[in-house]
Amino acid sequence: MLFLKVKYLDLDLETNAIIINEEDLKGTAYYPHDRVLVETSGGSFIGTLYSTKTMVSPGEVGFSKTIMPMPLKEGEEVRIRHAQKPSSLNYIKKKMEGQTLKPHEIHTIVDEIVSKKLSNIELTAFVVSNYINGMETNEIVEMTKRMADTGEKLEWENSPIVDVHSIGGVPGNKYALLTIPIVASAGIIIPKTSSRAITSAAGTADIVEVLANVNLNAEEIKRVVKATNGCLVWGGAVNLAPADDIIINVERPLAIDPKPQLLASVMAKKIATGINYTVIDIPIGPGVKIKNEKEGNQLARKFIELGDLLGIRVECVLTYGGQPIGRAIGPALEAREALMALTDFKSAPNSLIEKSTSLAGVLLELGGAAQPGKGNKLAWEILSSGKALEKFNEIITEQGGKETKPDEIEVGNFSADIISPDNGYITYISNKLITNVAKEAGAPKDKKAGILLHAKVGDKVDKGEVLYTIYSSSEERLNAAVNLARRTYPVKVEGMLLKRISKF
Amino acid sequence: MLFLKVKYLDLDLETNAIIINEEDLKGTAYYPHDRVLVETSGGSFIGTLYSTKTMVSPGEVGFSKTIMPMPLKEGEEVRIRHAQKPSSLNYIKKKMEGQTLKPHEIHTIVDEIVSKKLSNIELTAFVVSNYINGMETNEIVEMTKRMADTGEKLEWENSPIVDVHSIGGVPGNKYALLTIPIVASAGIIIPKTSSRAITSAAGTADIVEVLANVNLNAEEIKRVVKATNGCLVWGGAVNLAPADDIIINVERPLAIDPKPQLLASVMAKKIATGINYTVIDIPIGPGVKIKNEKEGNQLARKFIELGDLLGIRVECVLTYGGQPIGRAIGPALEAREALMALTDFKSAPNSLIEKSTSLAGVLLELGGAAQPGKGNKLAWEILSSGKALEKFNEIITEQGGKETKPDEIEVGNFSADIISPDNGYITYISNKLITNVAKEAGAPKDKKAGILLHAKVGDKVDKGEVLYTIYSSSEERLNAAVNLARRTYPVKVEGMLLKRISKF
Repeated sequence: MLFLKVKYLDLDLETNAIIINEEDLKGTAYYPHDRVLVETSGGSFIGTLYSTKTMVSPGEVGFSKTIMPMPLKEGEEVRIRHAQKPSSLNYIKKKMEGQTLKPHEIHTIVDEIVSKKLSNIELTAFVVSNYINGMETNEIVEMTKRMADTGEKLEWENSPIVDVHSIGGVPGNKYALLTIPIVASAGIIIPKTSSRAITSAAGTADIVEVLANVNLNAEEIKRVVKATNGCLVWGGAVNLAPADDIIINVERPLAIDPKPQLLASVMAKKIATGINYTVIDIPIGPGVKIKNEKEGNQLARKFIELGDLLGIRVECVLTYGGQPIGRAIGPALEAREALMALTDFKSAPNSLIEKSTSLAGVLLELGGAAQPGKGNKLAWEILSSGKALEKFNEIITEQGGKETKPDEIEVGNFSADIISPDNGYITYISNKLITNVAKEAGAPKDKKAGILLHAKVGDKVDKGEVLYTIYSSSEERLNAAVNLARRTYPVKVEGMLLKRISKF
Repeated sequence: MLFLKVKYLDLDLETNAIIINEEDLKGTAYYPHDRVLVETSGGSFIGTLYSTKTMVSPGEVGFSKTIMPMPLKEGEEVRIRHAQKPSSLNYIKKKMEGQTLKPHEIHTIVDEIVSKKLSNIELTAFVVSNYINGMETNEIVEMTKRMADTGEKLEWENSPIVDVHSIGGVPGNKYALLTIPIVASAGIIIPKTSSRAITSAAGTADIVEVLANVNLNAEEIKRVVKATNGCLVWGGAVNLAPADDIIINVERPLAIDPKPQLLASVMAKKIATGINYTVIDIPIGPGVKIKNEKEGNQLARKFIELGDLLGIRVECVLTYGGQPIGRAIGPALEAREALMALTDFKSAPNSLIEKSTSLAGVLLELGGAAQPGKGNKLAWEILSSGKALEKFNEIITEQGGKETKPDEIEVGNFSADIISPDNGYITYISNKLITNVAKEAGAPKDKKAGILLHAKVGDKVDKGEVLYTIYSSSEERLNAAVNLARRTYPVKVEGMLLKRISKF
């Protein structure tokens, strides 16, 4: 046990960081990153130990002024000892050993993730074990249910409640701004919660935020949906299945998304949102999460099976993810393109219109507004009649925005054209590299930053013709983005003659 | 990219922590724990991003005053962008996928571990993948060699150089204080480096430190070995195979020790110490690393195979690890018990004498001082003749200590007896629980703290008879240890009749 006197620090990097001079740790059984119990006159709490040379003197223990769990007097003596390891650790080890976890074991892991009892090391061990050893369907069901139960839930008086969800990975994927109003204007309830950009240049929530408020709480969501049948809000403002947001912090640095985790996190949010039917969009292609149709089919079957066990009807669609959807990438540019499509579909890229109406078609059939096989036609009718635009404006207005025309949306003042170095055809647009350029220009934080593609895969271009324009609110960032574009070639132009092989 | 002004902080929790106000991160693609590149007028460096509410204001970036890699002016503007992921990450992912790593891939991982380029999340992913997917012999060979090559090395003019190593887990395991002088006094060179306690109540280095200096650098080790043929020093003072010390930081919280890692870390230290022959002690029993003989045999074969490939002759001995070795646990108590054994072996516990002479016997045979099968007898002769004590005193003196009699060693002023609650037999002593009590009393930092067992497994005890005595330099800690002992029962006393089953 260590006996030390309290000192307050201006430190808020981590909840319950416990800072001790390295001299006090020498030769003890206490090491940095140990989980320790701090016993004080007013009770005890658990934290993580760190060592310092300078922040506190020997004999002192430093706590954060801002995030201390209980009031303590500066100079008061506290006792520090090893804390019990969290119960999850035994179950995480079982998963490492390749064993199947019991429901109560999975519940404990999810509970301790949500209450932030697990360190990054323990969380990583869980995620990597799932990645390697996988999970049985039953384990995924239990994880999904518990993830939903450990957060807020939306409840609805009517049914069915439908939903559409993309597992992501394709830039420019602004389909929801068309699909939701099409479905809602057919009288079907579709409360759409979206994420902000995680690794992309614009999440659906970032795009909608150009036109309206997306930070709605549960009450406000219900009001908007009651008034319009739909909504387009940020899921993060309501605390739906929060375990996911914690797990993602260790998945991102490793660039892994274990299938059990992916399935559970999508379906847990569905349960928490209270929906009955959902369509899941699985983009397929190089540079997105799912590389080919076979993998897409497997994942789709898993989603459907899981839906059955959880009482949610799931349909999956595999969609083309080989290049960006539409021509715009970045919040304001994407909002503008979506509004153009709603206002006059002939002025908008086919890929966007087709994806949006296809998804809407499936939802219209699921929701009972169209006969099987007739959904897509109805979706086109609703879009081309102007009803979808009307509904979109209703939703935007209910969310505190106002009706806007496409050319009223401002994009970055600074722009630069990237031109074709040769005559030829566009053979490839890299989802990842084009996203990086848009992010370098400032997206998604700079809402006016992004990219407008002037040509897409298969298009013929001449030398000197503009391939795409980069926009930014900052000249400095625009230059950085142009430099990145010149170094990495996100859009590839090649002649029809790709390689010439001759005898000599 | 982020543009921020430098502010210095008194912060030394982590190398290259980069502290940014959370307002500046909102809506960007930068997240806490991201690896970022800081570009300054004087060059660039890589660090880990953290967010704060209070430590720096929006527009500022905080760096540690003490561990900044380059001089920067307060207020200077720097640019921050995502850093390239370390090359290791791809190889760690290969290991997650169950693939075999190529030599250069393993070298990169070890190099980036040693140069601290990997985060805890990445390190954990590596360790957990090794734990689950294992490594082929060839991978372990490459890892071992690289671990040895990335640290300091001891070189010797003569040969053979012998060594003994225990993989640990048994309390009271002070055999080296007898084995080393026995072997050295037969003219065999045995430069023994030991660890301090990791999870135990006393490492060999902690025990020897009661009598002499153990923090010797490479030069000093050579001088002591030249004068005496042996030494008993702390390996941590020389930088031997330092990757191990970094990896252990993520293994400890998970309480895992993947076999490939265990094998590589032991053998890498052997290569770095420049030894030719080693005996590896593998304690077997409940509550130690290796649970049964079968597992022990497997590990032994692996060590021998690896030794062959690395040019080190390895012999393994499986030893009884079911209860503490000898009766003393804790640095001063163990030093005293070892000195008693060296001075008059009849006054010391059989388990200690037998283990020490058995290991010395194997080493004497390996080193050519005894015919095969005659080593143990020679070890006994050297011990009982007083030559081992003489050699021990030589080594201690060369390491800056002085000849000491067992009863001159001070133990804690405060002590308490734990008595038997019943008539019966000692059926079990928990290695783990008895260690916890010794640590609660202050061991290993309080060198005078620890436990003296008055009875061991199989001994008959009467109600009220003393089972063991706890020592401490602090009354407060003694009380804490007594409380822990009363709660957890590390020594179990049972009647011969364990359970009575009757018809009604």
